[in-house]
Amino acid sequence: MSAFSRFTPLVNALPSTIPFVGPEAIERQRGRTIAARIGANESGFGPAPSVFDAIARAASQTWQYNDPENHDLKQALATHLGTAPANIAVGEGIDGLLGQIVRLVIEPGMPVVTSLGSYPTFNFHVVGHGGRLVTVPYAEDREDLDGLLDAVRREDAPLVYFANPDNPMGSWWDAGRVIDFARALPETTLLILDEAYCETGPDSALPSVASLIEMPNVLRTRTFSKAYGLAGARVGFAVGTPGTVQAFDKIRNHFGMNRIGTAAALAALADQDYLKDVLTGISASRARISAIARNAGLVPLPSATNFVAIDCGRDAAFSRAIVDRLMDVHGIFIRMPGVAPLNRCIRISTGPEADMALLEEALPQVVAALE
Amino acid sequence: MSAFSRFTPLVNALPSTIPFVGPEAIERQRGRTIAARIGANESGFGPAPSVFDAIARAASQTWQYNDPENHDLKQALATHLGTAPANIAVGEGIDGLLGQIVRLVIEPGMPVVTSLGSYPTFNFHVVGHGGRLVTVPYAEDREDLDGLLDAVRREDAPLVYFANPDNPMGSWWDAGRVIDFARALPETTLLILDEAYCETGPDSALPSVASLIEMPNVLRTRTFSKAYGLAGARVGFAVGTPGTVQAFDKIRNHFGMNRIGTAAALAALADQDYLKDVLTGISASRARISAIARNAGLVPLPSATNFVAIDCGRDAAFSRAIVDRLMDVHGIFIRMPGVAPLNRCIRISTGPEADMALLEEALPQVVAALE
Repeated sequence: MSAFSRFTPLVNALPSTIPFVGPEAIERQRGRTIAARIGANESGFGPAPSVFDAIARAASQTWQYNDPENHDLKQALATHLGTAPANIAVGEGIDGLLGQIVRLVIEPGMPVVTSLGSYPTFNFHVVGHGGRLVTVPYAEDREDLDGLLDAVRREDAPLVYFANPDNPMGSWWDAGRVIDFARALPETTLLILDEAYCETGPDSALPSVASLIEMPNVLRTRTFSKAYGLAGARVGFAVGTPGTVQAFDKIRNHFGMNRIGTAAALAALADQDYLKDVLTGISASRARISAIARNAGLVPLPSATNFVAIDCGRDAAFSRAIVDRLMDVHGIFIRMPGVAPLNRCIRISTGPEADMALLEEALPQVVAALE
Repeated sequence: MSAFSRFTPLVNALPSTIPFVGPEAIERQRGRTIAARIGANESGFGPAPSVFDAIARAASQTWQYNDPENHDLKQALATHLGTAPANIAVGEGIDGLLGQIVRLVIEPGMPVVTSLGSYPTFNFHVVGHGGRLVTVPYAEDREDLDGLLDAVRREDAPLVYFANPDNPMGSWWDAGRVIDFARALPETTLLILDEAYCETGPDSALPSVASLIEMPNVLRTRTFSKAYGLAGARVGFAVGTPGTVQAFDKIRNHFGMNRIGTAAALAALADQDYLKDVLTGISASRARISAIARNAGLVPLPSATNFVAIDCGRDAAFSRAIVDRLMDVHGIFIRMPGVAPLNRCIRISTGPEADMALLEEALPQVVAALE
């Protein structure tokens, strides 16, 4: 297949793989419609009714580019977080921000520390910029903070990624331990503290904004894609010192934010009552998934996220068979971790009762059929 | 201001400037609300009523990530263009695609050829990836194809940018001349043929899809931001050979597209009748702007775009004074080219009659006040 002959050597060496196959692609491949979409850690609870009102209002302005300074959203976030707009960078979801952060820090060959089996999209960006992934195994299904710190020091790594709460295992560290980890890092190592799931965890797992806001080598990434129910809007943000945050302006796509999506995020942030309701729903759904798993003879792991990792007690082939059969026979879309030993598990996103009822019926049948 | 100490040398050397100040920022700076937003080549005619229906329908799914393969949009574009989905890459507006193309081709220090005064956002991406801009002056207010070709050969440049129709001057070349230019380029030079304004020009200015589709060193970029009235949706696409197009998959943010925006683009593409109406409106508005300019003693240039460049007959300071006074006194937002000799002009976007009426009243007053 004829391609342009002069892409960079780095690009020529990159694989054409993608981080995740989307549920729509799975539907097309399998020729089956998804009945329960509980695999991508989206929020089937959806955004607030007030968000739909905001979308309807913003639609009439969709012919206009969004404000490239993201002024109103930064103001609202700063007020919500008790910090200043200058501490905040807005981007096209955490995925977009991760790509920008890697670009800001990594030159080809540089080491980047992360956990073995954590967020594949981060790894995709690292590889795409020529970085060298240095992975640290999980310890008891949690990211190994001591191991990450050792790897950073050993490699003199300029960048380390740590998600709290964690994806794909749903585990977490208490705030004090996270703060200690951040402070123990060399000043020459930038910590990406990915807090995509910060709303769904216990308060004790979330360092205060103030506790890390003075550290130039910490960027905390958050999103409207999870608890706020706006994955399709692509609105994320990073919190850091003004000096560090300003670096995004040197490289970001200034007119890259969607106008309706930004309006939706503003409305979602304003409706904290609805968020509380959703968090109650997520908590109940976690308990429901855990009970369903136990009834099927599987072992749910504790979760601080909007999903539950379930230990299926065997190898990756068994987990994969459950994932495939849930989809092929029952139209239930879930996912599983990508590497051992995490891939003894499957990962099921929380969702409304209709999804849970389908899961309750299907999972024991699937497990029984495979045994 | 304390920043992380170990950004790449390239990033440390980058300016913190942005390509454009947005109209919302201008409103905040001047403390004045915009009455006529005719400066960013958006479409004040807005998208089709059918698009608003599609947005309303898609809102209920905004909790879901968009299909990362952009399957449906690629299918629809392929049918519309008479090509295959494999010839199409979808991205977050042309701005997003330009950043990706530069990243695919340019390593620090490499020459990139473009016209002096053409699209600043392209230049932003080139500088951001360490490329060296080699600029060719416009000739009689058109991009100088012979000059661009000479510069490519002289520099052995791997990348050249050419917009047809052109922004900011509104000028254009006939299709035959464009095809000759593309074919004369070395195979080792990738042509970005930016066709953001392809719908608004004469048919004779648009090379057929077939005429360039076999060339691995040509990427044609198009957008839903202009004639389709969806600037806020951030949906653009590139057309090229399957091999060249596939390279985007190696580096793009696979889950980066907005779900509602994508649905809006699909609906806009399907409503070609509405597009025709808008094109009639744009054509009438170009004539209206030209007449208003003449009445104010200025000289409108021919335009194949959704804006008109107007020669004010003096220096950049005079053009700038018109731009500023239109905003400060009348709340009319327009822009002007950034470099000489183009900056003897102002640039006014087409729009509905209410905007034109404001312009008709204001422009002669502004010119008279400055003389």
